Amino acid sequence: YDYLEQELLKLKDLPAVTLDGHSMRLMGNIEFPEEIPSLKGHGGQGVGLYRTEMLYMNRPGLPDEEEQYRAYATIVENVAPEPVTIRTLDIGGDKLATDLHLEDEMNPAMGLRAIRLSLRRPEVFKSQLRAILRAGCKGSVRLFFPMISGIEEVRSAKAVLRECMEELRSAGIPFDEKIETGIMIEVPSAVTIADLLAREVDFFSVGTNDLIQYSLAIDRTNEHLAHLYQPLHPAILRSLKTVADAAHAAGIRVCMCGEMAGEPLYLPILLGLGFDELSMTAVSIPRVKKILRRARRSDAERLVARALTFATAAEVESFVKSEISARFSESFD
Amino acid sequence: YDYLEQELLKLKDLPAVTLDGHSMRLMGNIEFPEEIPSLKGHGGQGVGLYRTEMLYMNRPGLPDEEEQYRAYATIVENVAPEPVTIRTLDIGGDKLATDLHLEDEMNPAMGLRAIRLSLRRPEVFKSQLRAILRAGCKGSVRLFFPMISGIEEVRSAKAVLRECMEELRSAGIPFDEKIETGIMIEVPSAVTIADLLAREVDFFSVGTNDLIQYSLAIDRTNEHLAHLYQPLHPAILRSLKTVADAAHAAGIRVCMCGEMAGEPLYLPILLGLGFDELSMTAVSIPRVKKILRRARRSDAERLVARALTFATAAEVESFVKSEISARFSESFD
Ligand SMILES: [Mg+2]
Ligand SMILES: [Mg+2]
Repeated sequence: YDYLEQELLKLKDLPAVTLDGHSMRLMGNIEFPEEIPSLKGHGGQGVGLYRTEMLYMNRPGLPDEEEQYRAYATIVENVAPEPVTIRTLDIGGDKLATDLHLEDEMNPAMGLRAIRLSLRRPEVFKSQLRAILRAGCKGSVRLFFPMISGIEEVRSAKAVLRECMEELRSAGIPFDEKIETGIMIEVPSAVTIADLLAREVDFFSVGTNDLIQYSLAIDRTNEHLAHLYQPLHPAILRSLKTVADAAHAAGIRVCMCGEMAGEPLYLPILLGLGFDELSMTAVSIPRVKKILRRARRSDAERLVARALTFATAAEVESFVKSEISARFSESFD
Repeated sequence: YDYLEQELLKLKDLPAVTLDGHSMRLMGNIEFPEEIPSLKGHGGQGVGLYRTEMLYMNRPGLPDEEEQYRAYATIVENVAPEPVTIRTLDIGGDKLATDLHLEDEMNPAMGLRAIRLSLRRPEVFKSQLRAILRAGCKGSVRLFFPMISGIEEVRSAKAVLRECMEELRSAGIPFDEKIETGIMIEVPSAVTIADLLAREVDFFSVGTNDLIQYSLAIDRTNEHLAHLYQPLHPAILRSLKTVADAAHAAGIRVCMCGEMAGEPLYLPILLGLGFDELSMTAVSIPRVKKILRRARRSDAERLVARALTFATAAEVESFVKSEISARFSESFD
């Protein structure tokens, strides 16, 4: 095992590129600065998902702009020149923050959470956005909004962002004037109108955990339904294709930051669909990179075309597994 | 008011047909036999949604096959020769039945409910299916399954139905050999694979309340999110079109039984999308019929084509309202 780990770590400084020359950026999901050494040690090309919830949880009061700025700046500086993709507060639902005075909700996963909560509490939202904008001067930062369900939410969020920029500009505080903004694609309606949303932002980041949960109406924490939570459900495959195609048609990047991104079984599919970036737990990066470096994009595209012809998740899965052992087999040794 | 009501009730025996000769079947949603006189008094052409949950709720024990048979047969006999569309148990979630021993769930709306529960408890499911099959001999019955998220669920449910038919046949008990089977389209994944699902069934019934809830990830019982629950969200319009087109491409009927079906504002859209049947509270039928009889399908089709070009629910709504006052105005007097 140690030997295999060592072999995988040797890949650290090799490019994440297929045999036929197609690059994918392999990034890490992080929550704390303490995770940066591991990210670098595993060859992560920046942070694809920096979750900011921990700053808000299990504490009295809310963090102010300065505290957030210091936290974000530390991470941005340490990851520079690679980018850090910061997700605005994705709290609510199961991750109740007492200081936000959230009431009990009947179905918290479909409740007042994430961007809905940020737009409802603009003073909280603005302190986070200003902190992110300022941290942008310490390296390379991208910003994105969770739980977007429609155009109005993106426009509202970007309007608040522009207000923050105005305020910082007036106060003479330096910030990243050209920050890239993106959205999570994790609500089914966002998939359905991905072509419209793609005109509003610089990138998409697909959150497969929630996307699967909402698309199949399966609470992903409900153990009785685990058998119905199927990442290879034909509806999920089609949705991923819709999102990737809409992004590329609009000339924007498409990233994946859900658990699917770090699972080797899905790599050929994500490669074939044309995902530009995958973000995962740092320790998963070497294994995914190894498979990527032995794969061909052209094979992966054929695999996806065929996978899209099946009617059930079971058929897709058995096809993908057989293809992997036939065509990508060395990668799984 | 009474005068208007009387005027509307005069429409009772007139056909539900547009000025350009396109018919739609306007049906009622019911739970109890006591509602049948009102259904007939309002000119309902059968029952588009018979909810069977009440038989299972607020009582000790579960109803057996005989009790269910008597309940269904009473309704079927009284509605004949018009059809009764019986939905199998749509319980779970908020409508907890103690006798089904359901545990508390974190997100009941995405929990073990409806067809998921029926497939988990085949003996309960089979007693209901046998009762429905037998009631089919008393008139015209169609059967449909709620909360379908994929092909396997439909196939499993139909396999249980075939078992029930075998059992009845062996026992020499008469039943409807040619019962039509359909599914609710209310889970986003069912929209995404509507073309595949259409090959498995005789009709679709779109449940807009849940479809909107899951597609937008908005708990429809959460008052804080009421502003985000938008029936005219572009993603919902597109989804309705996807479903209607998939049904017709496969040569099956598409019905709507959610609240949208009984709301006059949406009639031009549902007509333009080609819905074959609408099922609603009986009292809504005359008003919807009045609008239908003064509408042209060709106008409605143009309205839908234009409505599909907007990016936000607000734009769609203001367009539909202005079109209605310009083109369907007499209908709203
Ligand atoms: Mg999420
Ligand atoms: Mg429902």
